[in-house]
Amino acid sequence: MTTAKDDSPARRRGRRPAGDDTKAALLEAARGVFAETGYDGATVRAIAARAGVDAAMVNHWFGGKEGLFATAVLNVPFNLDEVLESVTVDGPDRLGENIVRTFLTRWDGAGGEAFVALIRSITTKPEALGTLKNLLISKVLTAVMSTTGSDRTELRSALCASQIVGMGMARYVAQIEPLASADIETLVAAIAPTMQRYLTGDIDG
Amino acid sequence: MTTAKDDSPARRRGRRPAGDDTKAALLEAARGVFAETGYDGATVRAIAARAGVDAAMVNHWFGGKEGLFATAVLNVPFNLDEVLESVTVDGPDRLGENIVRTFLTRWDGAGGEAFVALIRSITTKPEALGTLKNLLISKVLTAVMSTTGSDRTELRSALCASQIVGMGMARYVAQIEPLASADIETLVAAIAPTMQRYLTGDIDG
Repeated sequence: MTTAKDDSPARRRGRRPAGDDTKAALLEAARGVFAETGYDGATVRAIAARAGVDAAMVNHWFGGKEGLFATAVLNVPFNLDEVLESVTVDGPDRLGENIVRTFLTRWDGAGGEAFVALIRSITTKPEALGTLKNLLISKVLTAVMSTTGSDRTELRSALCASQIVGMGMARYVAQIEPLASADIETLVAAIAPTMQRYLTGDIDG
Repeated sequence: MTTAKDDSPARRRGRRPAGDDTKAALLEAARGVFAETGYDGATVRAIAARAGVDAAMVNHWFGGKEGLFATAVLNVPFNLDEVLESVTVDGPDRLGENIVRTFLTRWDGAGGEAFVALIRSITTKPEALGTLKNLLISKVLTAVMSTTGSDRTELRSALCASQIVGMGMARYVAQIEPLASADIETLVAAIAPTMQRYLTGDIDG
């Protein structure tokens, strides 16, 4: 485990944990397979086979084909399970706060350019849009909503998505000051109440 | 005024009011000049000369070069003066409601594809992004904010922009249901309180 079989820098480096090797191999294989066959044509089995790992590793590391596409092709700096954990850990009353903080922390860490590329993808590639909708909205927000006991969960999820995406557009794409360089807690204070109302409050005006 | 000088359908049609002729000529000239010289190289004088109208007509109909670019190239279905009027007419306490309703009415009327094209433009053309920021955010929202007496006007404007753009992304680009096909008043009820808080309420959490 501590000895590299291959020293070429793009593949496997000496001191990586085995999981990182598996993830890196899956990401590289996924980029190739998605590029060659498109999203619908690509299978988890084909990607795993090219990576030389068991197909179960795709679910283990990426939660499935959608998550692998989001990470490998769209460079989304989120892992579904990690996001759900960090958002829901403090209970339903702090969901709004945790969603805003988690989103900004991850995308700030990834660099704004990654979000710009993502938006460019979803306006030009239908499969990118469909995947993101399924992954971030249907799956993440549905799971978040299930912790609230709220009514009208689909509309509430969509409202949350609208403010989250808009915050990303303003901060990373349009770079509207002072929002673009505001510290994260300033934006949490301003935007979390919006998210919390959409999740658990009155949305009938 | 009721007799056309030229029957070619792309230019001047018979029964148009004179103002529509002037606007149409300016839009056509603007598309040509912006395409040939880029946004920075284009002058109001050159566009007006090509359209065969007085340069003052650009300010009269489009509020200047930015407004002409937004209408001619980006197909923004807003006229600055009209938007300001319809948003501010009911006073500061109904700004949130009027902004949401005006935005949705205009873009629904223009067809969602126009908004998708706009977002594609701002992620690929820096001059489109800069123009939109100046026109919609600095000018419209600054004028709106000046009616409120609120503090921290720039952050408030940016927060409003984030929710408005996100609403457009969710409805027209990502088409997240049920937000995408919700009637306008459902969204006004849900989103106007957000806008109103960003404009005149507590944004410190």
